[in-house]
Amino acid sequence: MTETHAPHVPETLYKSLTDSVRRLVDFTIRSQCDATIIESVRAKVDAAADELGRALIPGAFGVQQKINGSSLAWGNAVIGLRNALAPPLDIHHDDDGTVWAETTLGAAYEGPGGQVHGGVCALLLDHVLGATAHKPGRPAVTGTLTIRYEKGTALGPIRITAHIDRVEGVKTFAVGHIATPEGMTVRAEGVFIHPRRPTS
Amino acid sequence: MTETHAPHVPETLYKSLTDSVRRLVDFTIRSQCDATIIESVRAKVDAAADELGRALIPGAFGVQQKINGSSLAWGNAVIGLRNALAPPLDIHHDDDGTVWAETTLGAAYEGPGGQVHGGVCALLLDHVLGATAHKPGRPAVTGTLTIRYEKGTALGPIRITAHIDRVEGVKTFAVGHIATPEGMTVRAEGVFIHPRRPTS
Repeated sequence: MTETHAPHVPETLYKSLTDSVRRLVDFTIRSQCDATIIESVRAKVDAAADELGRALIPGAFGVQQKINGSSLAWGNAVIGLRNALAPPLDIHHDDDGTVWAETTLGAAYEGPGGQVHGGVCALLLDHVLGATAHKPGRPAVTGTLTIRYEKGTALGPIRITAHIDRVEGVKTFAVGHIATPEGMTVRAEGVFIHPRRPTS
Repeated sequence: MTETHAPHVPETLYKSLTDSVRRLVDFTIRSQCDATIIESVRAKVDAAADELGRALIPGAFGVQQKINGSSLAWGNAVIGLRNALAPPLDIHHDDDGTVWAETTLGAAYEGPGGQVHGGVCALLLDHVLGATAHKPGRPAVTGTLTIRYEKGTALGPIRITAHIDRVEGVKTFAVGHIATPEGMTVRAEGVFIHPRRPTS
């Protein structure tokens, strides 16, 4: 009964499928084809989804703990390897505590014409600021997040950077920003909370 | 040369295609099929995208002004009819100034296991709070947005509500929140700015 349990599928194959779906999402927004083609493509997409849906996890992907203590979040809206909504961000942790990610945002992330949706900026900043506070086995949750929009963020390449400003008890105060090749566009401050450990 | 200009395609057909792509995105996260099927589906998705991509808008969709003064934002990351990343939100404006939207968030919006990504909450709140300040022909841009996470937001049905707290000159101060059937989970405050009109 291989269809009721997740069989071994190479990670690269999931990545490849998700990249293909991401391209389809982009073309769905940008296609200028006529109604005959749109209808033909819709039928093909339905057939592909029917095949893929023959065996499904009952709910969302969840966060699976791996043996080495790290976690597998392939469904995550920002970093998920199998989530075509995610850019996805590849989060880097430098030795000095800086956390950063680079990506290129296309048509699917648009708000004002030609610009990244302000809420998408908030989405990405929440994740990267939060990553400064997360430790293996010690998840942190967002307490508050404040976003200051200094100018519009053009669609295209961006870099998101964050670092810890200070730690007070269970609270980690992180700051960060988004920059395009033309400079910094959005700043953020976040307070992330490590739930107190159970009494040991 | 119908392929170089957007021909007339019924809005319902775009909506239907986008709904199908949204289902494919969900199944791409949740499929438990084996490698043979994943590879087969990838090839089908590529073929469908190739067909859809025969004629494309050069960049993003943009925001097109309609004759009646309203705007067409089919590519928008939150409300876009043709954007499979968008839930999409259908924004309601009540007579008393309340702005609200209801949607159901599935696997593609996950952050912590079983919960909506905190950044997705910020994304949706940014849009709904901003909608309190937008007027036809008078766009408002986000100045600052502050999000307070009071508890996790379970995946499933949510309602996002906002209203204007006060207006000071070019600044509109809006407040709002997200609620699940179990109650309020995230609060937000935003300052939205109407760029000054040109001297008349």
